[in-house]
Amino acid sequence: MKFFTVTLLMCLVTANAIAAWESLPTEAPAPADNPTTEAKVELGKMLFFDPRFSATGTVSCFSCHNVMEGGDDHRSSSIGVHGQIGGRNAPTVWNAAFLSTQFWDGREATLEDQAKGPVTNPIEMGMASLEDAIERVRAISGYKVYFEAAFGAGDAVTIDNAAKAVAAYERTLITPNSPYDRYVEGDRSALSVQAIRGMETFEQAGCMSCHSGAAFAGPALPMGTGFFMKFPTFPDRPDIEKYSLMEDEGRFTVTGNVADKNVWRVPTLRNLEYTAPYFHNGTVKGLDDAVRIMAQSQLNKDLSDAEIADVIAFLESLSGEFPQQTMPRLPPTPGDLLE
Amino acid sequence: MKFFTVTLLMCLVTANAIAAWESLPTEAPAPADNPTTEAKVELGKMLFFDPRFSATGTVSCFSCHNVMEGGDDHRSSSIGVHGQIGGRNAPTVWNAAFLSTQFWDGREATLEDQAKGPVTNPIEMGMASLEDAIERVRAISGYKVYFEAAFGAGDAVTIDNAAKAVAAYERTLITPNSPYDRYVEGDRSALSVQAIRGMETFEQAGCMSCHSGAAFAGPALPMGTGFFMKFPTFPDRPDIEKYSLMEDEGRFTVTGNVADKNVWRVPTLRNLEYTAPYFHNGTVKGLDDAVRIMAQSQLNKDLSDAEIADVIAFLESLSGEFPQQTMPRLPPTPGDLLE
Repeated sequence: MKFFTVTLLMCLVTANAIAAWESLPTEAPAPADNPTTEAKVELGKMLFFDPRFSATGTVSCFSCHNVMEGGDDHRSSSIGVHGQIGGRNAPTVWNAAFLSTQFWDGREATLEDQAKGPVTNPIEMGMASLEDAIERVRAISGYKVYFEAAFGAGDAVTIDNAAKAVAAYERTLITPNSPYDRYVEGDRSALSVQAIRGMETFEQAGCMSCHSGAAFAGPALPMGTGFFMKFPTFPDRPDIEKYSLMEDEGRFTVTGNVADKNVWRVPTLRNLEYTAPYFHNGTVKGLDDAVRIMAQSQLNKDLSDAEIADVIAFLESLSGEFPQQTMPRLPPTPGDLLE
Repeated sequence: MKFFTVTLLMCLVTANAIAAWESLPTEAPAPADNPTTEAKVELGKMLFFDPRFSATGTVSCFSCHNVMEGGDDHRSSSIGVHGQIGGRNAPTVWNAAFLSTQFWDGREATLEDQAKGPVTNPIEMGMASLEDAIERVRAISGYKVYFEAAFGAGDAVTIDNAAKAVAAYERTLITPNSPYDRYVEGDRSALSVQAIRGMETFEQAGCMSCHSGAAFAGPALPMGTGFFMKFPTFPDRPDIEKYSLMEDEGRFTVTGNVADKNVWRVPTLRNLEYTAPYFHNGTVKGLDDAVRIMAQSQLNKDLSDAEIADVIAFLESLSGEFPQQTMPRLPPTPGDLLE
């Protein structure tokens, strides 16, 4: 996986960010080998919600990515099988399709690759292997017809096809038409005076150095590129230690490259009001603290309480329209599926 | 709570069961103090799916009563907070509105009373008290408007109202128009020849002594009455020990009355193909074993393999139409909700 270095990125985005405020597209890009189809989305939604492919039969994608709310699980870090607690805050699945890498540390290039990770993670879904997981899918005979509808007859029930279907469903999880989107598309009444003031503060303070683009997670880049930033850039601020923000070394845990210590994928800012608590370790509970800490740790700036309130009003204007989710019907369980 | 003694029941149902094959009503009865309204159903659905009122924020009614499938969790016994494992098989929530008591041991009279139980059960949702649970609901300020729409302005966010709303939603979880229902309503082509043969075997063998009525869980009785039966009635059959079917003493654990040892609420037979594994302890994985054991343990009869296959064809004809479930949108989480 290619990715720009931090320094190069900072130059790039400083040049680009001024260009335009972007609204969120109503369709997400899909890779050439996995065009989004209705049949894939239908199957992918079933798999996304089905807890039967976890060691205990109780944990699904949906468990930590609750699409009835912010697409995360409102915990500091998630709980997987056997009550085990993970190490990082679950990122939202809403608009993940617009990010050019997946996971906080960007360790997977695509939604297809991401979808396989939690299945065999021992503290998430805890399956012994991907093969064990797809064997469970095969054992639920009612799934076969959906795989064949999505991928053609033959050996359709494969882990790669399952991942493609889940990714196709996730590409429908986008939240356009926020007040901010309507504003930048010309509806000048869509934002309050305070939110507009916050938008200006957000730009002038330099937040858009990283949080640019339609998802406020950096510019659109080829899939797998990744848009990363060191966090904290100014590590001596007292809240950094208070909230243990340097304990997890981020992308360094993937690459082993010293330059990647405390480097993270820049997260989206959309629907933030639904995704508390904040940051990679979920230690910061309020948006006010989150904004204050980001200004200090990334821009070495101390925003006033009034400026913080304005920026929050702006950030709240990034909550879009959540497409209504109809629950899938899942095929019945053979009695011996879960021993 | 009143309930008939086993002996009285056996007489009653022998007289009643012959009367008629009943189809499932398309509406469930509601108690006088909780008429079903759209606003209650909407709120109740939100609460049913919301995991934030459990100790870990991960367990909702939906976790063990999966309405995407059989209304249970396809496990022998459920998993609650902190990975703890419960003692009994989760009963289906589909058509629970037609049962005159709730829980396997009938310890609660109504869906309203049932809804409160798992919240404070330490191995289910694990909240310290119902008051703690409703405090969490109050902390999610977006809920208030839904409680007021359902129950009027004022002190609407109460545990009793929450339980009423959940019960109102559950009264919509009914599955009419199964092949069986269409058959008894006059569509003679709705059942296969084998299913009709199984229906006759089911009646002649005596299964309807207990599994009568629209839900095949006994006759319609006033709410809170309860329709109970000893299981096993013939305890010396080898499978009783093999599947540990007498270890849990059932209703005796509620009443302390020796006559209630190994007495259970008669469960519904609807949608059985979706609710494996079977019985109160979930030890029996296949419908074939379940039918064979029931005939032996309750009727002292040994059905042939062909008879068992016929009865299964009949039981599978009891799978109805599952009303499509639209996911609720849940109001956002304050960052400090889950410490």
